[in-house]
Amino acid sequence: MTRHFLDVDDLSPGELADVLALAAEFKSRGSPRELAGQTLAMLFEKPSTRTRLSFETGMTQLGGHAVFMGPEHTHLDHGEPVSDTGRVLSRYVDFVMGRVFDHDNLVEMAEYATVPVINGLSDIAHPCQSLADLLTIQERFDFEDVSVAWVGDGNNVLNSFAIAASTVGLDLTIATPEGYEPSSDALARASDRGHSPTLTNDPEEAVADADIVYTDVWVSMGEEDEREEKLAAFDGFQLNTDLLPDSAHVMHCLPAHRGEEITGDVLESDRSLSWDQAENRLHAQKALLAYIGENG
Amino acid sequence: MTRHFLDVDDLSPGELADVLALAAEFKSRGSPRELAGQTLAMLFEKPSTRTRLSFETGMTQLGGHAVFMGPEHTHLDHGEPVSDTGRVLSRYVDFVMGRVFDHDNLVEMAEYATVPVINGLSDIAHPCQSLADLLTIQERFDFEDVSVAWVGDGNNVLNSFAIAASTVGLDLTIATPEGYEPSSDALARASDRGHSPTLTNDPEEAVADADIVYTDVWVSMGEEDEREEKLAAFDGFQLNTDLLPDSAHVMHCLPAHRGEEITGDVLESDRSLSWDQAENRLHAQKALLAYIGENG
Amino acid sequence: MTRHFLDVDDLSPGELADVLALAAEFKSRGSPRELAGQTLAMLFEKPSTRTRLSFETGMTQLGGHAVFMGPEHTHLDHGEPVSDTGRVLSRYVDFVMGRVFDHDNLVEMAEYATVPVINGLSDIAHPCQSLADLLTIQERFDFEDVSVAWVGDGNNVLNSFAIAASTVGLDLTIATPEGYEPSSDALARASDRGHSPTLTNDPEEAVADADIVYTDVWVSMGEEDEREEKLAAFDGFQLNTDLLPDSAHVMHCLPAHRGEEITGDVLESDRSLSWDQAENRLHAQKALLAYIGENG
Repeated sequence: MTRHFLDVDDLSPGELADVLALAAEFKSRGSPRELAGQTLAMLFEKPSTRTRLSFETGMTQLGGHAVFMGPEHTHLDHGEPVSDTGRVLSRYVDFVMGRVFDHDNLVEMAEYATVPVINGLSDIAHPCQSLADLLTIQERFDFEDVSVAWVGDGNNVLNSFAIAASTVGLDLTIATPEGYEPSSDALARASDRGHSPTLTNDPEEAVADADIVYTDVWVSMGEEDEREEKLAAFDGFQLNTDLLPDSAHVMHCLPAHRGEEITGDVLESDRSLSWDQAENRLHAQKALLAYIGENG
Repeated sequence: MTRHFLDVDDLSPGELADVLALAAEFKSRGSPRELAGQTLAMLFEKPSTRTRLSFETGMTQLGGHAVFMGPEHTHLDHGEPVSDTGRVLSRYVDFVMGRVFDHDNLVEMAEYATVPVINGLSDIAHPCQSLADLLTIQERFDFEDVSVAWVGDGNNVLNSFAIAASTVGLDLTIATPEGYEPSSDALARASDRGHSPTLTNDPEEAVADADIVYTDVWVSMGEEDEREEKLAAFDGFQLNTDLLPDSAHVMHCLPAHRGEEITGDVLESDRSLSWDQAENRLHAQKALLAYIGENG
Repeated sequence: MTRHFLDVDDLSPGELADVLALAAEFKSRGSPRELAGQTLAMLFEKPSTRTRLSFETGMTQLGGHAVFMGPEHTHLDHGEPVSDTGRVLSRYVDFVMGRVFDHDNLVEMAEYATVPVINGLSDIAHPCQSLADLLTIQERFDFEDVSVAWVGDGNNVLNSFAIAASTVGLDLTIATPEGYEPSSDALARASDRGHSPTLTNDPEEAVADADIVYTDVWVSMGEEDEREEKLAAFDGFQLNTDLLPDSAHVMHCLPAHRGEEITGDVLESDRSLSWDQAENRLHAQKALLAYIGENG
């Protein structure tokens, strides 16, 4: 049975802890070249510098190679059914990573692939970011003693983070404008993992006792039409020195829109964990690849 | 004298047998990292997932690296003469692979290059596919005891396959509509290798005694204008359960257009060797690279 | 303090000599895999076959990997500030190379990056080409005994070459049409290195005692609007058998426009060092990477 990683709950709580421990070890002591001669196919329907560099550098450090297939050449389910792509890729490479518009294409590919399929970002989930986020939090806090507030849009990053937070037992409060809540499916799956996040529409309430406040862009690439409407809806949700408790750390998965969801001074300040989150994509994904490669 | 591989008959019959034997060995026992530190430049005037992945993964498994130069950046004979490109590439890399519109550009590049130039697919030949096809057939049959029918368009894939079939002595019958025969040059070169394929315009006659029936798309990328005309001309040439003998295997070099040259149920059935053909691109091309690298 | 290489004078004269010596050694005796597991990010705002292949092949030969980020995905200072890109890249890779429109973006990136930033070609400088050129000259002449004439446009290639020539003490005469002189900044920095090139508008005077005559294209990609004007201004500056002394070698950093800045017969003749210059990009850049990697 091939192991895939389409969302955080494809790993059991124990496996998630193992992957995080392996990531921390790789970060502090380096990694062996245990994927020597192995190849990761990276399918990008949408460009993403961080996702690409972290996977491609990671495979290099593990002794293997990552093939970049950019948006110019990656059109899942055009020309060839996803089921054919999944079967053919499985004959060539050892891992497939997809950064896709439609999560369902990843699900179908995983059905037909006989090598692990990894979600590098889909419309509804971003589990690799969640691994990096947990590693970043674990470097400074015990999961059982930390309070995290998500302030912003209930998007794919949050969907996966909610499941991840519940799995490791950290306290999560989510403040979104009305109508921008995370998906009910993600909330249900978070709850299945033992904890339910607290939901509110009041950012001040959410951050009051937070050790960490996490946000993401309000307007993603390709959503420019909704820009004005979203800026209005998210009024009051900006991470700035007025909103934030003095002691709170800040997380942002980048790229950031300074002056929208976060101010430049906050992002640049010592309280910002953004650059560590970016770096931890590398270590977390290397651990995931090595773990799945061995336990797949 | 630099060894190139622009078509199947650039290898002597003995060399072709050696390459196939090496491919089978690589497939069953793995390959040494004998191209460590070596680079293959891959020039794609037209995208091709299978060609790219099989070469790029193959170089990785052999310990080397493949540089992907996509259609955005590859315009042979624009800006710079092919002769300059051939000379400059030879100063940097150990092998060049081209997937080109115009075969003549490969011929000119090979004249100036001092490293092996490999045809990854041109308008008139597809010799790497032929290597994979022979490997696929050899895994199930003795060449001298197998009958293969090609049913469909007399295209670049068939041109090279006819030469390959003649070289190894397998019995080949070709059924195309009138006007879609393989090139007379390819037929003459097939004949030079000792055997001539049987030509017919009747698909039923061709498949009657066939152990394997091979087809390819009727309408390639970029030929959409000729679509209606071709669909009419190829009426009756579809591989379906009516046409095919029960015991016949089916080959297709993918991607397939289900409902045109082949039905979905035939392609998905156990009789289909398509996925093995795809995989065997990898093993055959690795063997070719290793063989040419050593005997160039 | 991170070592960058934005122009030739980022290396002291002693360091430049060390890099050239290392390059010669790599060329004659091969290179160790001393960058195993290390990654170079290559940012291309404009495509460049030679720059890409020399860096990508070089990293492979040194045991590492180069990530190609093409013009489709590389838009410095769009979407994300260069300062963020510099910081994020530094978390993933060991070296950054940029082939950019605006030199200032490289300067800003170098300010924020904590890994070496290398100029792979900017609007005002091309220091990697200068390293290759010095290596090419050094293979045939002693720097103190050679006279080089630049005949053509006072462009980015010349800016860096003037500083390089002064640093190693070779005699340089520059002939450009009026209004096409090299930048005064480059001339001042050349002078700071101990020697000033001789400037003239007369190509015949420049080449009279030259051992080597160096030129480059008059009209670069993207300058087609100025084509007619430039062709008129550069009348008489073409490298052909009328202009050139019989014994003079010719240099050209390619691609060449035969019939404009140079004739085909001159470029193809034995006196042409162009193919060696192209090859020496590889050896010189490998030496630079290895040197900066160790002494950064």
